[in-house]
Amino acid sequence: MNLTPSPFAPDHFPALPPVKGVRAATGSRGFYAKRGLTRDDVFLFVFDKGTHAGGVFTRSATASADVLWCREALTRGNGRASALVVNSGNSNAFTGARGVLKNDATLAAMTAALGASREACFLAATGVIGEPLADPNYVGSIMPELTARLDAPDWEACARAFMTTDTFAKGAGTQREIGRTRINVSGITKGSGMIAPNMATMLAYMFTDAAIAPELLQTLTARIAEASFNAITVDSDTSTSDSFMIFATGASGAPLITSEADPHFKTVEEALLRVALNLAHQIVKDGEGAQKFISIRVRSATDDRSAKRVAAAIANSPLVKTALAAGDANWGRIVMAVGKAMEPVNAGQLAIWFGDHQVAEHGGRAEDYDETIASAVCAGREIDITVDLAVGHGEAVVYTCDLTHAYIDINGAYRT
Amino acid sequence: MNLTPSPFAPDHFPALPPVKGVRAATGSRGFYAKRGLTRDDVFLFVFDKGTHAGGVFTRSATASADVLWCREALTRGNGRASALVVNSGNSNAFTGARGVLKNDATLAAMTAALGASREACFLAATGVIGEPLADPNYVGSIMPELTARLDAPDWEACARAFMTTDTFAKGAGTQREIGRTRINVSGITKGSGMIAPNMATMLAYMFTDAAIAPELLQTLTARIAEASFNAITVDSDTSTSDSFMIFATGASGAPLITSEADPHFKTVEEALLRVALNLAHQIVKDGEGAQKFISIRVRSATDDRSAKRVAAAIANSPLVKTALAAGDANWGRIVMAVGKAMEPVNAGQLAIWFGDHQVAEHGGRAEDYDETIASAVCAGREIDITVDLAVGHGEAVVYTCDLTHAYIDINGAYRT
Repeated sequence: MNLTPSPFAPDHFPALPPVKGVRAATGSRGFYAKRGLTRDDVFLFVFDKGTHAGGVFTRSATASADVLWCREALTRGNGRASALVVNSGNSNAFTGARGVLKNDATLAAMTAALGASREACFLAATGVIGEPLADPNYVGSIMPELTARLDAPDWEACARAFMTTDTFAKGAGTQREIGRTRINVSGITKGSGMIAPNMATMLAYMFTDAAIAPELLQTLTARIAEASFNAITVDSDTSTSDSFMIFATGASGAPLITSEADPHFKTVEEALLRVALNLAHQIVKDGEGAQKFISIRVRSATDDRSAKRVAAAIANSPLVKTALAAGDANWGRIVMAVGKAMEPVNAGQLAIWFGDHQVAEHGGRAEDYDETIASAVCAGREIDITVDLAVGHGEAVVYTCDLTHAYIDINGAYRT
Repeated sequence: MNLTPSPFAPDHFPALPPVKGVRAATGSRGFYAKRGLTRDDVFLFVFDKGTHAGGVFTRSATASADVLWCREALTRGNGRASALVVNSGNSNAFTGARGVLKNDATLAAMTAALGASREACFLAATGVIGEPLADPNYVGSIMPELTARLDAPDWEACARAFMTTDTFAKGAGTQREIGRTRINVSGITKGSGMIAPNMATMLAYMFTDAAIAPELLQTLTARIAEASFNAITVDSDTSTSDSFMIFATGASGAPLITSEADPHFKTVEEALLRVALNLAHQIVKDGEGAQKFISIRVRSATDDRSAKRVAAAIANSPLVKTALAAGDANWGRIVMAVGKAMEPVNAGQLAIWFGDHQVAEHGGRAEDYDETIASAVCAGREIDITVDLAVGHGEAVVYTCDLTHAYIDINGAYRT
């Protein structure tokens, strides 16, 4: 399938800072060669001793074998991390007993090639669901080759190796000073779709050479996920493989951060959140068929959770998304979506803004409503919508894209 | 906007039995004349003394003024029903204080013209949300004209009067014998969309001359809604105006049914459910852009509620709906949708059928999976999908349609 690049695709992959204590290599298992494409489809990251990881995974009841392993490994190994292997082409989800065999074979090859302990090795896969695996060792067999090529990460090559129907490679990074020490944060992510399209899987990995204690790192990973990767939606569908991990090597030499009271904690948290949010936005901007980037801010809710539920109901509404795709300032559909969330709202004081223009107030159309202004906002490439529920102080932002014909084309294309 | 008729549109409106104790009239307030269309846009039903009503309404937190009134009236009047007025063209939702004025004016006109008590008069409206009303008496002013024309219902004329983007008029009816007395059940409904498209609103009204005690009628209405109108989904969006009411006149002369233990209760329930299910299916078959009718049966869930949640997650998944639109037997997306419902499931024993063909078993692709057979099922106009969660005895069926380009065309068309 020939995918039209997203209108948000950047001219070139951004320059990401190197992260001390992280090496990587990419390679090909030929998943895409079958389809006439020359590209890598697997990457290996290896971390210096002392690296810890935090992880957040899909809540799906049919999570992939890889996700189940990562959860178990994080617990058993107390967050110690030595390596990460990710392949595209087959999701290893719903592959029954063979899925576990594939993980066993991959982990055996990783421990043999790297001398790492099993529970410090992490896995993920993205691709067709339920496609049986011919050779359980299909990833493991490339491990010696990848190990021999380990070097400072070529971030773009890694980002390309796990793309599926992504139309551009996604990366983001930043640097901060902790005392006199520079710390680096780099991350890569992939979003919705596949060459043999099947479903949207979101994978995101971030790497920093800051030193963060394992328990704090897990807390931080979960909190950052909530404001970034868990605040985006393309089509409301949840993958069996969604994974977000942060690896902290500590190799910058910066002092270990062990609690939120640490004077450097806020600096690190802000840097990580900034990169995570950047990556999350890139996923939305490359959402299947996306032509517009939509930010939905809900405020004055009973609490932040309630605000997020209302924002998600708006962001997931096909009627809202098709209207915005057409540039229609159809704010009545926002009212509908607020209602269907069934969260507390003072309907008689509900207020809505498209950009800076108030379209609804006091439970009705705004006195100064101007269709021309509202339409101009909706004609834009990036649309900000604000909704005030008038019941409390909760607030949340959810990011989404519009629903276009291309979404149907991409997802209606036959798998084979 | 020119709407292509649904492929499920019948050749002609079905013959519905007359219901004793029910009179009706239709008329025009000119909502559609502005758009160059000659058609009725309001109907009035008037019921003989002794009629009771049950009602189920949208759970939206931004419910329309009409819905709020119907709920209040049912409670205050203990289910007594004298009349029902419904208009298309403007939903009277999110119209603030003027929405209440419109109801007051309409109710005043109804009580004056019919000599009915206020709380026995029911209202609904479907159309653009948040469009301010110029004249609060816009429905009330036609009441004398409608009252003068009351006669045995022309079901098709009534069904046409509240269509919005429906591509065919929807009605269903049936008859039963209770002892020596024939009872009649007729119903009409409207589904998704508008001429000035804004949102899907579902309205359904059923009428019977059976005699049913008011409390029992309310219980029955709720139970029937659960298995019919609350078991369908076109796009997961919830209207501010959804209403389903059953009016029972008792004019057949059949004995009053006061409890579920009554020997005739099952007969009446079955007849009402049959008509409700028929009407609900017609809404799905005329879903915006629908080309296929999809039944999703989930069984072996922990309980019926859990089964329904899983079935709804499948039915609402854009990835499932786009695959089926393309005739793609993409059962991996069913696995994904089962997972995202986050209900109890034995993933290692999960089984899926497309029609009679088993595509998944023991948490993986079925041994005898045949892509040709699965594709043939998905190429059909009506698709049955069965999912076995392998955890209990709960069961539910949810009905939906596919997601096609026409959905985006209809809902992206500008309101004005």
